[in-house]
Amino acid sequence: MPANELSANDLKLILDFTVNLARKAGQLILEGSEAIQLAGSNVDEKKNSVDLVTEYDVRVEELVKKEITATYPDFKFIGEESYAAGSRSPLTDDPTYCVDPIDGTTNFVHGFPWVCISLGLIYKKVPVLGVIYNPFLDLLYTGIKGEGSYLSKHGGSPMRLPLAKSLKPLATLNHALIAVEWGNDRTIDPLTKRSESFHKLAGDPDKGVEGGRMAHSLRSLGSSAMNFATVAQGGLDIYWEIGCWPWDVCAGMVIAQEAGGVVTGSHAYYEATKDSPSFGVLNEEILTGRKYLVIRAVGDSETENGRDTQKRIMGEFYDTVTDYNVS
Amino acid sequence: MPANELSANDLKLILDFTVNLARKAGQLILEGSEAIQLAGSNVDEKKNSVDLVTEYDVRVEELVKKEITATYPDFKFIGEESYAAGSRSPLTDDPTYCVDPIDGTTNFVHGFPWVCISLGLIYKKVPVLGVIYNPFLDLLYTGIKGEGSYLSKHGGSPMRLPLAKSLKPLATLNHALIAVEWGNDRTIDPLTKRSESFHKLAGDPDKGVEGGRMAHSLRSLGSSAMNFATVAQGGLDIYWEIGCWPWDVCAGMVIAQEAGGVVTGSHAYYEATKDSPSFGVLNEEILTGRKYLVIRAVGDSETENGRDTQKRIMGEFYDTVTDYNVS
Repeated sequence: MPANELSANDLKLILDFTVNLARKAGQLILEGSEAIQLAGSNVDEKKNSVDLVTEYDVRVEELVKKEITATYPDFKFIGEESYAAGSRSPLTDDPTYCVDPIDGTTNFVHGFPWVCISLGLIYKKVPVLGVIYNPFLDLLYTGIKGEGSYLSKHGGSPMRLPLAKSLKPLATLNHALIAVEWGNDRTIDPLTKRSESFHKLAGDPDKGVEGGRMAHSLRSLGSSAMNFATVAQGGLDIYWEIGCWPWDVCAGMVIAQEAGGVVTGSHAYYEATKDSPSFGVLNEEILTGRKYLVIRAVGDSETENGRDTQKRIMGEFYDTVTDYNVS
Repeated sequence: MPANELSANDLKLILDFTVNLARKAGQLILEGSEAIQLAGSNVDEKKNSVDLVTEYDVRVEELVKKEITATYPDFKFIGEESYAAGSRSPLTDDPTYCVDPIDGTTNFVHGFPWVCISLGLIYKKVPVLGVIYNPFLDLLYTGIKGEGSYLSKHGGSPMRLPLAKSLKPLATLNHALIAVEWGNDRTIDPLTKRSESFHKLAGDPDKGVEGGRMAHSLRSLGSSAMNFATVAQGGLDIYWEIGCWPWDVCAGMVIAQEAGGVVTGSHAYYEATKDSPSFGVLNEEILTGRKYLVIRAVGDSETENGRDTQKRIMGEFYDTVTDYNVS
């Protein structure tokens, strides 16, 4: 096929290819985890597990690149390694894989099974296809722009997302289960803004917490891609993070959007777009903006349609938390 | 068998019974989750899901009690319902099931699959057997005092815990993946102590966070029983929570201890026992004290044996966080 023209049918074939690739990569991730568990106490822990993680991160990325090049030689590739190597070229209109070989590396190091490979495809600068595979729990999430998103558990048949048979309502932040993350930058300023934000989200305004939202609860799970996928599924209501990279979120964005979720960027981006037709439309600015907020599909209530509810709750969320800049 | 004399062989038979019961209960939990997902947007969300959760919590507890009574008529039973009914009698020496029918109810309401049934057995006031089953992810954890603990994934063979082939070291809190929870009491005082504790655990002492420990990261997963089980497995290094009840932790304590983990109670309890032979020995005081700290098995290093490391890191942990009282 011409690399610069992808039909709906092309995307279906690409999805099959990407799912097979994700399962193959998943085997390598499991092998890496075994190696880390085996390494045990004979070697200095830190060096050893970090070395092994780096080794398997590189091996999975190499496998992915090799298979993509063999099947789709004209497709481009974005990942942590290519960014780090300085080849941070702007997006083109060409089909571009945007891949995190092991998303949730801290979990991976520790043997906590909330780990996945995240494979996104960008076309004409817009994320159009996503595959997220957790080989430890055998959870496979897929989505194609305009075609819906799906979860296959333990090798079973794909189930359309969200899983709820009719859309669940969501009245306010008070009813929400919210994913937030502690991130890697633990410098005083961003850390304080993060922990104060979490404090307000959790706090009871009737029991002394000024501006508290008394969210149903907060979760910190350690994988952006799995957070997006779980929001798509309906198992989390909201996920907010500052500091992720495009490969952490590209696949998840497609899966969440195709499950009726809304993805937006920074607080400023939300304010600038919330009353325009581009609200919730994936684009390069959201993808590369490093600030992400996503909310699951919400059913209509008697007084408000679901899309308006999503927009209103995102506004409540941004009025509660404090933005900060990433390094 | 006489209810007041349990042999090692009795415990093995009780384990088989308890595993079957957990799997049967797991089916009912899945059915409850389906019902909640099906309920959808036609009914008022809050009332509806809370009602359904309560209904299935009661149904699972009734199933468990019925089967226990039929097989072990002399065994006693402790659970949230019996406490709530005011029958908060002190523990006796009799075999006593201590059960949380659905642990992780917030996750259950939201369809987040980190949910389990937790079945513990207390004998002569000491937790001696534990079964934790997550039916959504098909993860089954078991342990018998003195006999080790095991994980069966997706119906596979039991794997001895911890999963690492040789014990992993753990140098300091800086290397640790730590589970903490936001809890249900969001009053200003306990919430502030919690969020300040998390802030210090996460913060970088070299980047302005006084007393910061720069933990590898923090996780909040929403199920005490699963947190204990995951520490046993080696997928989390430490779990700390104030405010749990005995049925949340009873099974998990046995599973963690049998995997080489150490469980202790409050900061005061830790200080009072750390230099005595009773350090890390499960008893009624730890079980019912509502303040829990658990650390995974740690390998010996060149300069320190693993048990001393566990004790030292628990001390570092308690020097970092702020204790608070529960209502």
